[in-house]
Amino acid sequence: MAITDFSKDLAIGIDIGGTNTKFGIVDHRGNIIEQGDMSTRDHATPEVFVDELYKCLEPIITRVGKENIKGIGIGAPNGNFYKGTIEYAPNLEWDGIIYLTDLVTERFKLPSSLTNDANAAAVGEAMYGAARGIMDFIMITLGTGVGSGIIANGQLIYGHDGFAGELGHTIIIPDGRMHWGTNMKGSLEAYCSATGVRLTALEIMKLNPEKKSMMADVPADQLDSRIVYECAIKGDELAIEVYRFTGEILGKALANFVMFSSPEAIILFGGLCKAGKLLLDPTRKHMEENLLPIFQDKVKLIFSELKESDAAILGASALVWEMK
Amino acid sequence: MAITDFSKDLAIGIDIGGTNTKFGIVDHRGNIIEQGDMSTRDHATPEVFVDELYKCLEPIITRVGKENIKGIGIGAPNGNFYKGTIEYAPNLEWDGIIYLTDLVTERFKLPSSLTNDANAAAVGEAMYGAARGIMDFIMITLGTGVGSGIIANGQLIYGHDGFAGELGHTIIIPDGRMHWGTNMKGSLEAYCSATGVRLTALEIMKLNPEKKSMMADVPADQLDSRIVYECAIKGDELAIEVYRFTGEILGKALANFVMFSSPEAIILFGGLCKAGKLLLDPTRKHMEENLLPIFQDKVKLIFSELKESDAAILGASALVWEMK
Repeated sequence: MAITDFSKDLAIGIDIGGTNTKFGIVDHRGNIIEQGDMSTRDHATPEVFVDELYKCLEPIITRVGKENIKGIGIGAPNGNFYKGTIEYAPNLEWDGIIYLTDLVTERFKLPSSLTNDANAAAVGEAMYGAARGIMDFIMITLGTGVGSGIIANGQLIYGHDGFAGELGHTIIIPDGRMHWGTNMKGSLEAYCSATGVRLTALEIMKLNPEKKSMMADVPADQLDSRIVYECAIKGDELAIEVYRFTGEILGKALANFVMFSSPEAIILFGGLCKAGKLLLDPTRKHMEENLLPIFQDKVKLIFSELKESDAAILGASALVWEMK
Repeated sequence: MAITDFSKDLAIGIDIGGTNTKFGIVDHRGNIIEQGDMSTRDHATPEVFVDELYKCLEPIITRVGKENIKGIGIGAPNGNFYKGTIEYAPNLEWDGIIYLTDLVTERFKLPSSLTNDANAAAVGEAMYGAARGIMDFIMITLGTGVGSGIIANGQLIYGHDGFAGELGHTIIIPDGRMHWGTNMKGSLEAYCSATGVRLTALEIMKLNPEKKSMMADVPADQLDSRIVYECAIKGDELAIEVYRFTGEILGKALANFVMFSSPEAIILFGGLCKAGKLLLDPTRKHMEENLLPIFQDKVKLIFSELKESDAAILGASALVWEMK
């Protein structure tokens, strides 16, 4: 039986999230040949992180043959496509400007390219997911942070400096909740990230001491968005209210985004999407209520069709095919 | 002396504003050969309006020779490039969907094309004004309404349906001031349009009955943004506060827009720009304060370099050169 000849038909896709880093080897047709993950946290410096990443990937690279790999695409928070840097990412432990593609290319001896993690997910969705054939859409990633990738006229919007699409940091509630990382008040991410949902749950329990909630059975420091979801699907009134409120904020934000670029679709992606209709219904309601009539009942508000790990890896790897 | 041969080197540019409609004949190099204006209001139907417009333009068309005119470009609020329609424009007196290019082409017997008035102004600025050579910028028009045109990757963003760039209707202050036309609360236009400035002036005088203001010498129904400006430059404390507040709201809005498309420049345009530093300084302050560090001290916040009437006519006329 002949061994498959990959000859430069493989790309490495790496998705650096606030909590975990996922990686995979992807072929030209979008099949993930091998994949794995590691923690993004607890690496003193980016150099140590890249070294650890190399150790994770080395056996896989050897298995498929390094000569068959064209390059490495990376999605990262606050990633800059033009410079290959991660700059002042509030959800990562490293400060300042990190020249990540320089570090990666030196360690792996492979060309590398980098963009915003949400931009990468948007590209993955456009190539292999719910956005196939859609020329104007916005991808919103609801995970540790809230990210976004904006496609208009069939192109990713990078902005003049490569930083476009930081919708998680737009202010939705002026003088609202303080964000733990940016110190900005009332940003989308302060409410609609995993941490935001956790904080909303704690606030709602405090504001409603007379109401019983299963969420109260969990020690406050262990309460997270997953537990809120589990309580909500069991019918816990306050937990349902947490997702309703989260959807209200998200819906208001999406209305503003629609009036900016008038997308055909908004694709939601990431851990919070597990909440399904609990999140989607209030989000859609408040989005529609805050739109001018010309925008109402037009925008497809849908969940990603790709597995969370797949989309980010596929999108990041797609950067490789665009390398010169 | 030979008469200049224009042979199809002329375009008609028409800018339909909430109050006035401006028109001009423009050559390929951006010279406005002839121009004029008429009221947009008090025409019972779009047909009557187009007829009136034709009567205004007919003598000019005859003078330059109709055979030298390639077509008509129109900028209009809620204008749709794809369909040639004006749809549910809150600042115009006509309801519903108006098939304007059909009406214009039939009356003038010339091909016509239409876009959002602010999109047209953005194109004018890109071709002849402060945005020459800038691939990513946002044009904000501060007039009867607040409009916007967004250029990213060197292209106008139309969105999937031709309605992108309605930034005046994004919500900046949730549950804030009710907009007189849209019934939406807290939109940018509710504060940063000419009407918004007038309402802010009335509110601020009401909230500060102990403070003397020159604005109080004007009957309330005659107070407008021009008078507020005249009082402010004479040092009237409350009038200055009106522009400071207006700049605060505008700055917060612009910060959100920057985090969307990361433009190299934001170009302000329209009647309210007469306020100069009175508006620009607080706008810049609040924009910078509401930006993530990666966006700070980067965006050029500038006034249009074109005369107000010129930019809109030039931009509208530029649509003609793109006609097939």
